[in-house]
Amino acid sequence: MQRYFVANNQLTDNDFSIIGEDVKHISKVMRMSEGDELICINEDGLVAHCKITCISPDEVKGDVVEYLTQNTELPVKVTVAQALPKGDKLELIVQKGTELGAFAFLPFQASRSIVKWDEKKSEKKRERLEKIAKEAAEQSYRNIVPKVYSKLSFQQLLKEAENHDIKIVAFEENAKAGEFNNLATSLLKAEVASSIFVLIGPEGGLTHEEVLELEQAGFIPCSFGPRILRTETAALYFLSAVSYHFEMLR
Amino acid sequence: MQRYFVANNQLTDNDFSIIGEDVKHISKVMRMSEGDELICINEDGLVAHCKITCISPDEVKGDVVEYLTQNTELPVKVTVAQALPKGDKLELIVQKGTELGAFAFLPFQASRSIVKWDEKKSEKKRERLEKIAKEAAEQSYRNIVPKVYSKLSFQQLLKEAENHDIKIVAFEENAKAGEFNNLATSLLKAEVASSIFVLIGPEGGLTHEEVLELEQAGFIPCSFGPRILRTETAALYFLSAVSYHFEMLR
Repeated sequence: MQRYFVANNQLTDNDFSIIGEDVKHISKVMRMSEGDELICINEDGLVAHCKITCISPDEVKGDVVEYLTQNTELPVKVTVAQALPKGDKLELIVQKGTELGAFAFLPFQASRSIVKWDEKKSEKKRERLEKIAKEAAEQSYRNIVPKVYSKLSFQQLLKEAENHDIKIVAFEENAKAGEFNNLATSLLKAEVASSIFVLIGPEGGLTHEEVLELEQAGFIPCSFGPRILRTETAALYFLSAVSYHFEMLR
Repeated sequence: MQRYFVANNQLTDNDFSIIGEDVKHISKVMRMSEGDELICINEDGLVAHCKITCISPDEVKGDVVEYLTQNTELPVKVTVAQALPKGDKLELIVQKGTELGAFAFLPFQASRSIVKWDEKKSEKKRERLEKIAKEAAEQSYRNIVPKVYSKLSFQQLLKEAENHDIKIVAFEENAKAGEFNNLATSLLKAEVASSIFVLIGPEGGLTHEEVLELEQAGFIPCSFGPRILRTETAALYFLSAVSYHFEMLR
């Protein structure tokens, strides 16, 4: 059944209302009509099986058939702090990272990020990434849409990381030096419901100074296996490993 | 140091020779010259630290400085059988799958694959994918270049799967039904050096008949976590989980 995210006030105990771009998706793309069924998910992740009673050009309305108890969220909240990569790689990271269960995405300007985003570009990018996250969340049966932050500076990022239980930085020099324990050791320490902050550098890697600052801020440098992953692959590896560790091995 | 894959006869105990497209890469893209150093890896995965003595328009030659004992290969050989997906998704799967350690890629025509490849297109695609695999293998420090098969039919694929120790099919219906044990159980059974064959269906999923035939052929249907992954994400999840299981948890 097709899934749509709605604001909390659009889903009550008995009925739902869908507005905005999803109305076109329901009527034109999916060609649904009165009597058809869909799933609504509110901002708290509550999932309702619903039935359409009325489609107008601006709104789709209907009844709640029943609330479902589905929960497809990772048992740990993973925030992916991604150094701005080249081209449209961030779109790939947000799309695939959403499927793989990320809780939030936080793009930041690293010293060696080749791309620069000014204020205006940053907001436009954020809106585009938010849309990609919403679509991927609907398609992958998520209970929530991951939050996409505005671009932060490295110092803002350090501040943002403070509230997280576990902080990890992907560090390929560890792979080259044969370190393969830190990731599993960190995940073994993470309890269910903890928050994990994972930081991925840009194509050219993090600078020595950045790595030092991160270590001082409590980040654990981890290899993600012996092979050298591209920047856009690292987050996907991490999220898959977290899923395997917490959802499959138990 | 830049890495190049060469044929076995191009790397002896004492010297190396690089021919073909890599010559242009070395002289024009990397702008290397006599005295510069690089890594050569032969078809058996032997890795040599080398020094250039001569660059001509058709060949780069030089000495072996020393053989290295690097091994970055996954301890299990994973063949990814991927139903033909839409667009350029197969390129993404081969590039990222190579970084993540796949041993071979086997594209096949599933009932619900929307794309059809005729003989001519299939060979052209295979050559393109082989090139992507080679570049990704060099960049990710692999010891081997994964093999890319020509497109097979479903029946040819069943035959090809026979020689593998463990056969897994990604099955999203298992995720919807709450099965989250089969993947870890299968990997726990896999010993180091076993071969794993993992099959991923197309966008529309495998048909009931295909799943039945696979089960009869010894494939274990597995969910890859509670979220529904797109076809191009499933192989990446699987390879990351295999890496985490065999390389990081030990």
